[in-house]
Amino acid sequence: MAEMWPERELSQDDFLGGRLKLFQPRQGYRSGMDAVLLAASVPARSGDSVLELGCGAGVAISCLGHRIPGTQLTGLELQSHYAALATRNAQANSLTLEVTTGNLTRMPELLKQQQFDHVMANPPYFLREQSTEAPDQGRETAMGETTPLADWVAQAAKRTKPKGTVTFIQRANRLPELLSHMSAHLGSLTLLPLIPRTGKPARLVILQGRKNGRAAFKFLDGWVLHDGTQHDGDRENHTKATTCILRDGQALPLGQITL
Amino acid sequence: MAEMWPERELSQDDFLGGRLKLFQPRQGYRSGMDAVLLAASVPARSGDSVLELGCGAGVAISCLGHRIPGTQLTGLELQSHYAALATRNAQANSLTLEVTTGNLTRMPELLKQQQFDHVMANPPYFLREQSTEAPDQGRETAMGETTPLADWVAQAAKRTKPKGTVTFIQRANRLPELLSHMSAHLGSLTLLPLIPRTGKPARLVILQGRKNGRAAFKFLDGWVLHDGTQHDGDRENHTKATTCILRDGQALPLGQITL
Repeated sequence: MAEMWPERELSQDDFLGGRLKLFQPRQGYRSGMDAVLLAASVPARSGDSVLELGCGAGVAISCLGHRIPGTQLTGLELQSHYAALATRNAQANSLTLEVTTGNLTRMPELLKQQQFDHVMANPPYFLREQSTEAPDQGRETAMGETTPLADWVAQAAKRTKPKGTVTFIQRANRLPELLSHMSAHLGSLTLLPLIPRTGKPARLVILQGRKNGRAAFKFLDGWVLHDGTQHDGDRENHTKATTCILRDGQALPLGQITL
Repeated sequence: MAEMWPERELSQDDFLGGRLKLFQPRQGYRSGMDAVLLAASVPARSGDSVLELGCGAGVAISCLGHRIPGTQLTGLELQSHYAALATRNAQANSLTLEVTTGNLTRMPELLKQQQFDHVMANPPYFLREQSTEAPDQGRETAMGETTPLADWVAQAAKRTKPKGTVTFIQRANRLPELLSHMSAHLGSLTLLPLIPRTGKPARLVILQGRKNGRAAFKFLDGWVLHDGTQHDGDRENHTKATTCILRDGQALPLGQITL
């Protein structure tokens, strides 16, 4: 039996403008915009199978399942209490999600026997020799890199069908590594920088590749997340196009040809 | 004596709004906006030494010399008739430029004994197994890659002083390679995508690194070259900020701290 949180330690949060209501730990790792943007960028169609590596409480994979009904959703999660929450969240939102608890560097047999049309991941962003650990252990496991990014990418590529896509979201300052690992395993790479505001450096990148893809690397113009020149008090101030993704559940098109 | 073009095979072209008048071969490789943008992005100060690998007829290095008076300018060029033209162009524009004819993979002794505050390059963009050769031999040598990009970057890094900068301009679809090679030799990388128009994929990238730099990779918002949504007949339609660089000789700031 997987470890579970007492109810009082959970909050139920709205995603996609309240279309999804998802439990997350109040103190642990909490998904936000990054998970929603990742899910919005996967070019899946109804009937496709999708695997998320490190699915946490299932925010990204649930957003994807909601946007494209009829997808077969699978998640791999290291922390059993997050995996249990992902299963519960999917059920509560009428989505069918199969979650396996396990470590991607020792891929569970069940997943080893499968390949997926699309694999996505929002891996830990922080190298801990350069930064401070989160006080909450679950949050730290989600945010501090212990499994190298190279392994995330290699395992994602392995679990992808020929011509299938792999999509990662990562901090912009780790683009050199991410691009190097993705280039080693995938083709037809498309890079989308996520820019907080016009003229500011990118904070995040979405990088998508295709297994056995042969198209040239494509470098899209930056996607601007917020209007205005600075943070405006408590207002979220997302650009109209970003609001369409976060509130209305629209896709974030990377221009990959759907096969 | 270096081979020279007959005068009738040369045109004298305006750069930086006519501040520089530079001879270029009518039929051979002709520099344009890319060379001017490269020169504008090097954070040199008066008194600094600057080396350009593959300086051609000297457009970029002359633009840099004009923008920052008092720089010590050096060029390496494979094709002797372009090297001679670079020397002539510098003299005609009252710039002091030392040009060496030679191959960067067999670095001339004179350059081997020196390191520079800044090294820049606008290397060939095209891998010829994937594209068509230019009919003009000089143009083909400038545009079709024979010396691997990896060697351009390695040699640029070798010729740079500790804490000096290396700046490359390259086609955006070769960013994965360029980033991989620059990461291997340099730190504090800054990436500036050059976007033809808002919302269009980047066509070019400027990537700048610092020898022994330790800052995190920085990914700047795209620099937009043209206004409007499409090419407007014969009008150039550059954005105001781009015109300041191309016509008025201003810098293209990448935000590197000048040491």
